[in-house]
Amino acid sequence: MAGSTYGTLFTITTWGESHGAAIGVVIDGCPAGLSLSEKDIQSYLNRRKPGQNKFTTKRKESDRAEILSGTFEGKTTGTPVSILIKNEDQRSKDYGKIKDCYRPGHADYTFDAKYGFRDYRGGGRSSGRETIGRVAAGAVAAKLLKELGITVTAYTRSIGSIRIPYKEYHYEEITENPLYMPNNSYAEKASEYLEACMKNLDSSGGTVECMVTGMPAGIGEPVFQKLDAELAKALMSIGAVKGVEIGDGFKAAEAPGSANNDSFFSKNGNICKKTNHSGGILGGISDGSPILIRAAVKPTPSIAREQQTITNQKENTTIAITGRHDPVIVPRAVVVVEAMTALTLIDLLMRNTTSQLENLKAFYQGK
Amino acid sequence: MAGSTYGTLFTITTWGESHGAAIGVVIDGCPAGLSLSEKDIQSYLNRRKPGQNKFTTKRKESDRAEILSGTFEGKTTGTPVSILIKNEDQRSKDYGKIKDCYRPGHADYTFDAKYGFRDYRGGGRSSGRETIGRVAAGAVAAKLLKELGITVTAYTRSIGSIRIPYKEYHYEEITENPLYMPNNSYAEKASEYLEACMKNLDSSGGTVECMVTGMPAGIGEPVFQKLDAELAKALMSIGAVKGVEIGDGFKAAEAPGSANNDSFFSKNGNICKKTNHSGGILGGISDGSPILIRAAVKPTPSIAREQQTITNQKENTTIAITGRHDPVIVPRAVVVVEAMTALTLIDLLMRNTTSQLENLKAFYQGK
Amino acid sequence: MAGSTYGTLFTITTWGESHGAAIGVVIDGCPAGLSLSEKDIQSYLNRRKPGQNKFTTKRKESDRAEILSGTFEGKTTGTPVSILIKNEDQRSKDYGKIKDCYRPGHADYTFDAKYGFRDYRGGGRSSGRETIGRVAAGAVAAKLLKELGITVTAYTRSIGSIRIPYKEYHYEEITENPLYMPNNSYAEKASEYLEACMKNLDSSGGTVECMVTGMPAGIGEPVFQKLDAELAKALMSIGAVKGVEIGDGFKAAEAPGSANNDSFFSKNGNICKKTNHSGGILGGISDGSPILIRAAVKPTPSIAREQQTITNQKENTTIAITGRHDPVIVPRAVVVVEAMTALTLIDLLMRNTTSQLENLKAFYQGK
Amino acid sequence: MAGSTYGTLFTITTWGESHGAAIGVVIDGCPAGLSLSEKDIQSYLNRRKPGQNKFTTKRKESDRAEILSGTFEGKTTGTPVSILIKNEDQRSKDYGKIKDCYRPGHADYTFDAKYGFRDYRGGGRSSGRETIGRVAAGAVAAKLLKELGITVTAYTRSIGSIRIPYKEYHYEEITENPLYMPNNSYAEKASEYLEACMKNLDSSGGTVECMVTGMPAGIGEPVFQKLDAELAKALMSIGAVKGVEIGDGFKAAEAPGSANNDSFFSKNGNICKKTNHSGGILGGISDGSPILIRAAVKPTPSIAREQQTITNQKENTTIAITGRHDPVIVPRAVVVVEAMTALTLIDLLMRNTTSQLENLKAFYQGK
Repeated sequence: MAGSTYGTLFTITTWGESHGAAIGVVIDGCPAGLSLSEKDIQSYLNRRKPGQNKFTTKRKESDRAEILSGTFEGKTTGTPVSILIKNEDQRSKDYGKIKDCYRPGHADYTFDAKYGFRDYRGGGRSSGRETIGRVAAGAVAAKLLKELGITVTAYTRSIGSIRIPYKEYHYEEITENPLYMPNNSYAEKASEYLEACMKNLDSSGGTVECMVTGMPAGIGEPVFQKLDAELAKALMSIGAVKGVEIGDGFKAAEAPGSANNDSFFSKNGNICKKTNHSGGILGGISDGSPILIRAAVKPTPSIAREQQTITNQKENTTIAITGRHDPVIVPRAVVVVEAMTALTLIDLLMRNTTSQLENLKAFYQGK
Repeated sequence: MAGSTYGTLFTITTWGESHGAAIGVVIDGCPAGLSLSEKDIQSYLNRRKPGQNKFTTKRKESDRAEILSGTFEGKTTGTPVSILIKNEDQRSKDYGKIKDCYRPGHADYTFDAKYGFRDYRGGGRSSGRETIGRVAAGAVAAKLLKELGITVTAYTRSIGSIRIPYKEYHYEEITENPLYMPNNSYAEKASEYLEACMKNLDSSGGTVECMVTGMPAGIGEPVFQKLDAELAKALMSIGAVKGVEIGDGFKAAEAPGSANNDSFFSKNGNICKKTNHSGGILGGISDGSPILIRAAVKPTPSIAREQQTITNQKENTTIAITGRHDPVIVPRAVVVVEAMTALTLIDLLMRNTTSQLENLKAFYQGK
Repeated sequence: MAGSTYGTLFTITTWGESHGAAIGVVIDGCPAGLSLSEKDIQSYLNRRKPGQNKFTTKRKESDRAEILSGTFEGKTTGTPVSILIKNEDQRSKDYGKIKDCYRPGHADYTFDAKYGFRDYRGGGRSSGRETIGRVAAGAVAAKLLKELGITVTAYTRSIGSIRIPYKEYHYEEITENPLYMPNNSYAEKASEYLEACMKNLDSSGGTVECMVTGMPAGIGEPVFQKLDAELAKALMSIGAVKGVEIGDGFKAAEAPGSANNDSFFSKNGNICKKTNHSGGILGGISDGSPILIRAAVKPTPSIAREQQTITNQKENTTIAITGRHDPVIVPRAVVVVEAMTALTLIDLLMRNTTSQLENLKAFYQGK
Repeated sequence: MAGSTYGTLFTITTWGESHGAAIGVVIDGCPAGLSLSEKDIQSYLNRRKPGQNKFTTKRKESDRAEILSGTFEGKTTGTPVSILIKNEDQRSKDYGKIKDCYRPGHADYTFDAKYGFRDYRGGGRSSGRETIGRVAAGAVAAKLLKELGITVTAYTRSIGSIRIPYKEYHYEEITENPLYMPNNSYAEKASEYLEACMKNLDSSGGTVECMVTGMPAGIGEPVFQKLDAELAKALMSIGAVKGVEIGDGFKAAEAPGSANNDSFFSKNGNICKKTNHSGGILGGISDGSPILIRAAVKPTPSIAREQQTITNQKENTTIAITGRHDPVIVPRAVVVVEAMTALTLIDLLMRNTTSQLENLKAFYQGK
């Protein structure tokens, strides 16, 4: 299928450009009977909304979700849930030079190469606003996961080179600082670094980490649709992500097998692991431990500093991107990572229900 | 679709277990008219075959490819190409204890959790032999890419902590050492490290890098099927891979925007970039520069050292995995990375042919 | 993927219920560069709109299409085209008894069996209004086909047992009568029959035929995605369709091979057929002759006559369905058949561009 | 995905040409724990094997199934089941003239139009032998259905114009005559007609009907993946099928609503229908009544009589197709219809398990 649909049983199709009339998503395959209101979705959208603090664009958007189908008397009916978010503060006039120029680090050139031309207003479909549909759908996926006892929590692990060591994580602080970091004092340091970036007409990247608890063992399909393969795709499909790790990730490549293997042990009839270097996934299938994944987010390419580039007529020129841009998108990417993880998990959880004949027989017994 | 099929237009379906009768792959959607013989496939399979040097398992397998369908008079016909490789040296007797035990770092437990039981002989479907089908199909994909002027080259970038600095790459040396490293003297150091691992009854991981040249700009679908998202899935779907990077990857997360952006310039009517931090992909679409991706491979979990674990009856026990196991799988993973990259590229190249109405019209004009 | 998405490269995802806020469709994979305005879509929607004549429901709906994304300066950009149609005249009060009863011939019971409950207002997702999204997307597909020189024309072949013999077809009369029949005098007879049905508190079915001209040879994928297999699915997926035929259809089953085979002959360098019993498809692939398909449409199940049925508590009862219902839906189904045919053709035309290596090479030459 | 794969959760991928080394199928997504041996598959293959009686080709093929993967100790493991059937009696020498000529009613021309050339030996991929993979996979699907209490039975309803009236069906006679007709004396008449056809150097078509009992209500996805839409595709994807009907099919188009609607009634707490004009499907979802579908099979295009045609150089010529050809393929198509129906049902039954949140919660409770 074409590129704007994600998932096999729980599928989402997103649509919309930065400066079009609206942005939205259609969720198909959502099980019937889930309580769902616009509030459930709004609380997720609010976490990625612009204008929340000094490090996010001043663009004013209320990003209000409307559910247009798929619910009846407050519950999902099993039919497609269509969610629409109107674009409000579009200021098309801002985008003069971008019309004919290829911004470094942006998709301007590659869209032209692919389609022959592009909607240049605010990046069009390649704008960060494209993630609104993901987040709205992710809110529904997360609510389903909660019904199954599964929790997905993402947070900022590092900004630039300021990284919180694992032993200094305080999860309760994640919502206490504007950067969604699990350590307020590191968040403070990161804020100072970001202010220096802004003064410098520069920008910063960072890493987002995501932890899943309550995940049953046995989820994921062997070979191409491994749980980690699908999560890697999910995270790498977010605009600025350039790297993905599961568990120890690249560090595992340096460790000896004796240190990297997680020993099993049995305790009170439960299967446990002494360590979790694997990040909760073995052979592409969940092992019942917490799932731990990480995404590297590149620095915002839009910077006010002058950069060399070319026009779409292949003439050399320079560009300084003024206007409303986040010096760092990592904190706003946190909820997008959470959404993409939730969407991936619910799809694989649904697909797993027919892995054993006994389960299929039990389901249809007496029907 | 279920987990053993990969691709949208150029699809492959792999099948087979380590100790079954055979292993194979069906390629569907291969364009008609490609010259193809078993030799084309064998040269790829030989690169992942066991027994090539002291760091690979002593299992004796000739891994001979047979093409059973889809070619006629030496050319592909457009119908499915079925390739079969018989399993030969199966020695099922080796697998006594593994029958009832969960090996740390392996998929034994997770397969049981998913399916209720498993084919424990040599890891069954979760064995490294599962990659044979990928490599056989990758050989066909690579041959198609070559017809389009595109080359895919993978190699070992690091073994344990022995990593070749970028300025010391000598690509011509890749095939001169058994580790497929682009620097013979680093390969020597890595060999010494691996011998120490073996003496120590331990194992090692490493990283594989893959470079694509000749790639046209404009390939990849925006949003969920970005070129980098699909590559991340492709690589992470390989058994032991725990991390994936595109271009600068995790290093990009620490760099400022001014350093990470690649400036465009025009030269002789061509669009060029001064640097390639992006790894040849912008907004999920190829930008015409070389594509650079990297995969972190964990150390082989099978080690002769005694490890704590449990039985499938949840009793604590210990296990030492003797038998024929690679102390490092990185060199054999090189061709698997190359295959998965080639398979991903050909699929997206084929999908891209209808991105513009003008191209579609030109194709059907006069038909 | 879930049930509301159709197509592989040119995919559409429909959403919406009869009495929800709106109904819509997202088209993904539409090639960039097609001139497209709301007028293009409106002219198709108007053909299925209620209230056009005495045989269609009096429900008042303007069914006005709004394009919310995917076009820029009047042309498609290659990104998803989201089309929304607001529901207006909903009159929920009409649906009292239907809430707890299963209407014979309707999907009330089966939706309850599947989902546990249903949006009973106007049939919810199983309402004929569900086809609005198909028709809107079909208008886009038809416009693309026109650019390739392909025309899709559907019409009413029969109402009840009033069927136009092939030699009495006058295609130019299709738009001259409210039943879209290619013969005005048969249309007159059919009108009389329908008025009798209405007086009788009864309803009628009929058949819709669809002809495709300008189709190049070679379109369709062998085996499961044959052109005729996909067309059969496309037409049978329309609510009231109970049978589908290609070419001579069921009559072919009675003919001897010598009569049913279409002889080839060559004329002015063109490959021609003396007859077209095959309906333009051989081995699941178009043969360059006109494609001819037919769909049997059952009589509208909503009739004012009293019928026996049960409540959702399994109590026997009776029901007479008053309110606004078409005594025949065949004329309104004509444009739906046309839409589904166009959607199926454009998808297979797009997929066919990579069937030969030579074409793929020509496409990428010099890129 | 490309054209040789069928299904979403229970997927099959077939491969192989008439005169290649072998023919086969890979089943992916089969639930673990099904007892499966080669005998289960062989009994289905034997029903479509050539040489069973005077109306089938004299080609000698034992069509012996080998299971190469996916089972362990007699049970499916959840991993792909690869089944291979070697081609034996290939006699390539028979196919001299066909090499350069387009046989009327065959796919010779359309394959050339699509792929530029073709494997002309015995029709290559467009041969009836392509259905072997379907039948082998259908045997597995049928065994799964049996575990769920569902039975699929196909039979010949008519040969040429000799059709058994519904009230003269004797199901127990289906296996008592070589034509698989549920009435031995009609089978006798049909045999006489077929002998006349053969003497006449001509061939015959017919219709195959398929009945499904034990089907639970609620199966099928609304909108595009309706149960009847998927069945229509399944049957129309069989080489010679030119029409498909559900329940009353084309007759429904002539009936008034009052006669076509099936009244519900309640009996001993069960939901029943007085009639079954709908063929067990309402709104694309099973209603718990027997499913009834019908396929029109065209007459075998290969006839010994001289026919006009052209060469691949567009020269007019004639052809008489001697060699080993069935005068009617209907009896051998019976098991193919049964297989395609079973494959379609198991896939939709598996997909339905997540239609309600309550079911999903129950499944994961305590895991």
